[in-house]
Amino acid sequence: MAFDALETPFGKVDRIIGGSAMYAAWAASNFTQPVNQVSIVGGDFPQEEITALAHRGVAFEGVEVVPDGKSFFWSGRYHLDMNTRDTLVTDLNVLAQFDPKIPESYQGSEYVMLGNLAPAVQLSVLKQLKHRPKLIIMDTMNFWMEHTMEELKQVIGMVDLLMVNDSEARQLSGEYSIVKAAKKIQEMGPKYLIIKKGEHGALLFYGGKIFSAPALPLEEVFDPTGAGDTFAGGFIGYLARIKDTTFEGMKAAVIMGSAMASFCVEKFGPERMKEITPGDIDERVQEFIALMNFSIKG
Amino acid sequence: MAFDALETPFGKVDRIIGGSAMYAAWAASNFTQPVNQVSIVGGDFPQEEITALAHRGVAFEGVEVVPDGKSFFWSGRYHLDMNTRDTLVTDLNVLAQFDPKIPESYQGSEYVMLGNLAPAVQLSVLKQLKHRPKLIIMDTMNFWMEHTMEELKQVIGMVDLLMVNDSEARQLSGEYSIVKAAKKIQEMGPKYLIIKKGEHGALLFYGGKIFSAPALPLEEVFDPTGAGDTFAGGFIGYLARIKDTTFEGMKAAVIMGSAMASFCVEKFGPERMKEITPGDIDERVQEFIALMNFSIKG
Repeated sequence: MAFDALETPFGKVDRIIGGSAMYAAWAASNFTQPVNQVSIVGGDFPQEEITALAHRGVAFEGVEVVPDGKSFFWSGRYHLDMNTRDTLVTDLNVLAQFDPKIPESYQGSEYVMLGNLAPAVQLSVLKQLKHRPKLIIMDTMNFWMEHTMEELKQVIGMVDLLMVNDSEARQLSGEYSIVKAAKKIQEMGPKYLIIKKGEHGALLFYGGKIFSAPALPLEEVFDPTGAGDTFAGGFIGYLARIKDTTFEGMKAAVIMGSAMASFCVEKFGPERMKEITPGDIDERVQEFIALMNFSIKG
Repeated sequence: MAFDALETPFGKVDRIIGGSAMYAAWAASNFTQPVNQVSIVGGDFPQEEITALAHRGVAFEGVEVVPDGKSFFWSGRYHLDMNTRDTLVTDLNVLAQFDPKIPESYQGSEYVMLGNLAPAVQLSVLKQLKHRPKLIIMDTMNFWMEHTMEELKQVIGMVDLLMVNDSEARQLSGEYSIVKAAKKIQEMGPKYLIIKKGEHGALLFYGGKIFSAPALPLEEVFDPTGAGDTFAGGFIGYLARIKDTTFEGMKAAVIMGSAMASFCVEKFGPERMKEITPGDIDERVQEFIALMNFSIKG
């Protein structure tokens, strides 16, 4: 839960709401309640943003507020190729002291998503869970591969599904071929692996099986910030709703996550996520079905 | 119809059979006969390569043989990222004097593919056709956009379907967004547009509709040479067989083209194309169906 300042070819914003947990909560709360949030904010984090999510069934007991502290701040600039970005500023602020405490009321959570943070923090969350969740998914990034690879591998060994982008999959495995990279990563522990490819969609791996989901071709990707977290939130929120963690359920969840991400990039920050209705989501899923539907004759 | 020398991370070959028309003929002849070839070769082109294709129903009356001339020669090197390549040598040889003559026996061809060559040569072929084919598709490349844009636009205005890769679509349209690029290119004439994205698959555009086909995730892309031509040959050969040039038929043909291309890259040159059976093709198409199949519940 954070503040972001963003610059894209389409405009600029100085200080808007951001952070993986905000994007994931907006997306997941379309499908399931409660969404039990774990994070840390400073006294500067707007109460109305918390209230808006609370109205959607998001619980904040696990969010620590440091009244005298400042929330995490990130500033970045995107170029025409939205797949790459420059980080301009990273102020850890209260995140530097983040030591998550899982409230008693969160115990028994069946679907757990570990957002992209230090592996030690992700591990601490898992260790506090009294019952093994039905599904644990995790996100990570190149930074942790470069600085804390051993701890990262320990956490990867404990989860059911890992989500990374294609360059991270290559870095983590040391393999250039995405198929070989997927095999090596699955050998590290996760039965399921999702490799995100931005505008080129995502691949889901399970054993020797692969599912390929396209991204929705859009006239404009206005702001890609949070698209991956929105994907993850939509993915796990939908799985919590259908209660099907087989490969079949995961495939549908990849489409649902992709649909949610396609909304996210239409406006700055999580703004678009605040507007969409169940009807909008159904319509977007139909667009994915049309995009992928074909039949072979003769 | 040419010779290639290739270097990939997996090996090196000095002088093998190549050329768009060879790849396209190997692919198309799996689905339809006759395939009426138009090209030019030197006296150095091996008779057994022509005989092998003739046995598959490929006609060579439209292929000019210059006994004292040398066939076109191209040499290139691929790096780990198979989407880019360096051209080491281009010897036009007999191609410099190519002035295609459409034999009387080819008149009435309903499905016409214009391979990547000078727009003036493509135009000359179209002008010699006494009846407007049911479907004309064309390939081109950045070189013609840089040197003969006006002639290129004239040919593009005469065809039903254009096939280009994503960077060529951007260059041709002046738009970075692929969706906007597709709109502008469709305004130039072609009702249908295929944008090829290498390992990320292909997009088919028709009016406001889009179909997205993945590439088959492969452990190793051994040699990508000819993959685009094989895609095109499989695409139009299959359309000639099903005789369905609607959007529905085109979608299935994109999958068939993608399946053929996935074989092509498994060995150097067109070698793999010489081995595959109808059973192999059916099996590969089933892999595409599995790769894209999902169902949404609840």
